[in-house]
Amino acid sequence: MKTNGAANIGVVGLAVMGSNLARNLASREGNSVAVYNRTYARTESLVTEHPEAGFIAGKSIDEFVASLAKPRTAIIMVQAGAGTDAVIDQLAERFEPGDIIVDGGNANFQDTIAREQRIAPTGIHFVGVGISGGEEGALKGPSIMPGGSEESYRTLGPILASIAAVVAGEPCVTHVGTNGAGHFVKMIHNGIEYADMQLIGEAYDLLRTVGGLPPHAVADIFARWNEGPLESYLVEITADILRHVDQATGLPFVDVVLDQAGSKGTGVWTVQNALDLGVPVGGIAEAVFARAVSGKAEQRAAVRRLVTSRPEVQKVSPEFAEDVSAALYASKIVAYAQGFDAITAGAEKYGWNIHKDQIAKIWRGGCIIRARFLDRITQAYTENPDITTLLEAPYFAQAVADGEAAWRRVVATAALSGVPVPGFSSALSYYDSLAAERLPAALVQGQRDFFGAHTYRRTDRDGAFHTLWGGDRSEVTA
Amino acid sequence: MKTNGAANIGVVGLAVMGSNLARNLASREGNSVAVYNRTYARTESLVTEHPEAGFIAGKSIDEFVASLAKPRTAIIMVQAGAGTDAVIDQLAERFEPGDIIVDGGNANFQDTIAREQRIAPTGIHFVGVGISGGEEGALKGPSIMPGGSEESYRTLGPILASIAAVVAGEPCVTHVGTNGAGHFVKMIHNGIEYADMQLIGEAYDLLRTVGGLPPHAVADIFARWNEGPLESYLVEITADILRHVDQATGLPFVDVVLDQAGSKGTGVWTVQNALDLGVPVGGIAEAVFARAVSGKAEQRAAVRRLVTSRPEVQKVSPEFAEDVSAALYASKIVAYAQGFDAITAGAEKYGWNIHKDQIAKIWRGGCIIRARFLDRITQAYTENPDITTLLEAPYFAQAVADGEAAWRRVVATAALSGVPVPGFSSALSYYDSLAAERLPAALVQGQRDFFGAHTYRRTDRDGAFHTLWGGDRSEVTA
Repeated sequence: MKTNGAANIGVVGLAVMGSNLARNLASREGNSVAVYNRTYARTESLVTEHPEAGFIAGKSIDEFVASLAKPRTAIIMVQAGAGTDAVIDQLAERFEPGDIIVDGGNANFQDTIAREQRIAPTGIHFVGVGISGGEEGALKGPSIMPGGSEESYRTLGPILASIAAVVAGEPCVTHVGTNGAGHFVKMIHNGIEYADMQLIGEAYDLLRTVGGLPPHAVADIFARWNEGPLESYLVEITADILRHVDQATGLPFVDVVLDQAGSKGTGVWTVQNALDLGVPVGGIAEAVFARAVSGKAEQRAAVRRLVTSRPEVQKVSPEFAEDVSAALYASKIVAYAQGFDAITAGAEKYGWNIHKDQIAKIWRGGCIIRARFLDRITQAYTENPDITTLLEAPYFAQAVADGEAAWRRVVATAALSGVPVPGFSSALSYYDSLAAERLPAALVQGQRDFFGAHTYRRTDRDGAFHTLWGGDRSEVTA
Repeated sequence: MKTNGAANIGVVGLAVMGSNLARNLASREGNSVAVYNRTYARTESLVTEHPEAGFIAGKSIDEFVASLAKPRTAIIMVQAGAGTDAVIDQLAERFEPGDIIVDGGNANFQDTIAREQRIAPTGIHFVGVGISGGEEGALKGPSIMPGGSEESYRTLGPILASIAAVVAGEPCVTHVGTNGAGHFVKMIHNGIEYADMQLIGEAYDLLRTVGGLPPHAVADIFARWNEGPLESYLVEITADILRHVDQATGLPFVDVVLDQAGSKGTGVWTVQNALDLGVPVGGIAEAVFARAVSGKAEQRAAVRRLVTSRPEVQKVSPEFAEDVSAALYASKIVAYAQGFDAITAGAEKYGWNIHKDQIAKIWRGGCIIRARFLDRITQAYTENPDITTLLEAPYFAQAVADGEAAWRRVVATAALSGVPVPGFSSALSYYDSLAAERLPAALVQGQRDFFGAHTYRRTDRDGAFHTLWGGDRSEVTA
């Protein structure tokens, strides 16, 4: 393994994501790309179909490794799980200290941390990289979230920068932090994506069910929203989807799609990890649960059979769409605030020095949640990296204040009309919890002290206290 | 270790829970109780303070084991975690096949499954037992949720039955299922407890903030509710707590308690496991998050500093308390429905044959969530163990229908008045999701197909489909 090949980067695993990433790499000046796939037929067809890429095809893993220039740098693009470990081992056996193994799959960040620890003694760098943007992003320019060591980033950074999406002249890539930081932030990105999609779904449902509008009219509203502060990829494609007519039936496309949403697990991970970190992420959790509920076909059928009358839909003013827009924007701000809180807590727990302004920046292009709005987040964290929540940044505080009354009307209207708005209402309750002078948590502490002697603190002096509930109800210091 | 001692049961770990459980055991006819604690001083003081118990004190673990009759049965009551493993090993080294090691602590059910697997080859039974009811329950009669083998239950069952709470002549104990089933169900119990407490907190907050009532008047309302369908231990003690006056200040007790709620982790476990199981448990998750938010003192202070005006509190009718009662009851039904769904899913995943009617039955006494209402759950699952959700059981369907309009008014009023009701509104959205003819999940599927080619199903025929969004937008079979 003392060869020094011609390729500055290699890709292992040539399914759609891997092929597209390899083509993207090959299309950028300065890159020479080696490719390898367990089944050579796939390598062959990629190389044949894309002669312009000048791929260096490895028939065996040895040939692949021999074709890499030092420090050897290979990006693994295989299904997350056991397959990843097998490929890591194959490369690690052949790589030398200073070489770089990159996992570009959707790995759990805790696996990435464990893998980095396992590889570290060999002197080989192991780098987990979150890549967002789906198949098209991989081909044309994704948002890239690399973890791993500073040293590896000196080699890897320029390569990733060459293929990333570009916004305002800047590539959507930054060194997130060491070991699993990249996959962690990618996970949070996906959690926020769940919330974003759920909130858009609620807005659509309200405009249709309460607003009485057909899909194409809702599409027009989304298209209009995409000219303002809500401008984002998801709002843009929502307009496209709602306008689409099913060719087989002539019905609106959205009406022929089965209303049971699937998921691939990163939303679940986000909420589970936020729970570990003690960070409330109701906006994300409700989105994950909403997908789960939608798939409970038997429960839905059973309840529908029993429900004989649904509440009357509330009458709304012609400005209802504006109200919904305000509710959507405020709820979205809350979901992002919660997501960034999870990043703050994760960085603290795992020892990552994450620049949140840079995270918002690299999400502006290439990824699913790309949005104009992210500039505001960058601005907020650039102006003051120590804000305790996005909701206290001047722009967001003002945005929520401006939309607050409409947000309340929308949630109230939905409750009275029988339209499920778990995302909007969870976000509003979160905001009201933060804004409240006093929370009923005081009563909860009283209950916990009553039945479990868990003690409580007081508002007027320090210490932990317990009331002798079963005795004379005097208070003792715990 | 071939001795055959006099004690039919032993307790290891004599902190408050262990001591109380040992005293409870000793007070029941037929039991002879051996006790052991790592520090002998604690054993000595327990034995001295309670001569009536006739404890057989073990100075060493050997002495303790020697004092047990065969099959030796010992309940470990130590802090969950590494300490538990150490004690298990000490006992396992000295026990013989057929003997029974019981973990009565708040272990994670997955640890219990692993421990049972580890011990099984020795022929010793390892049994995880959930015990609810706090210190007082341990002493006077808890609700007991044993897992482990059928064989171990033949010995252990009668001993546990002797100390359990008794309701309508029946002890609150049942063999939940094998290995970790007992600790799993105890975990769900605690998750439901979180939801129950949060919902009571929201009801209190509404009566106080919107209803304008002082704590003692809210206490009167809770006391009245405790005469009806809401009758439960938590409602009862809430009345007590709200009536209590702080002796130091003369203020209502609930106003001097710091409004930051603590937690010990079983709520987090419940939600994390429900997420793994794909079961939506928004009612429980929002309760866990509400405690977390309450503890974010810096965020709360920052947002409060910025908020210059709070929404005007809505005017409500004199029947507002009745509305809140209906909202509380309906939301509580949802939380229990979600908890029982998690039990169903857990039983399926882990291969437990759990009788849900029996679970509701043993929660009627001894534990924190004991309530009249649980009879209705027993009845629902006895009549039809295969209902897909508690919400389709006739009693609960009717109860929700009766309260539905009030529930909607309360959630709307809270949204407009700025009172956080994450529990009430999550439950309502869950119900409305189940009751909806169509969910915006169809749009979410469209989005997922658009950006990730995740495919969708159709309402009018089987199969998985993909629209060529980037092409001519025709539909292909996936």
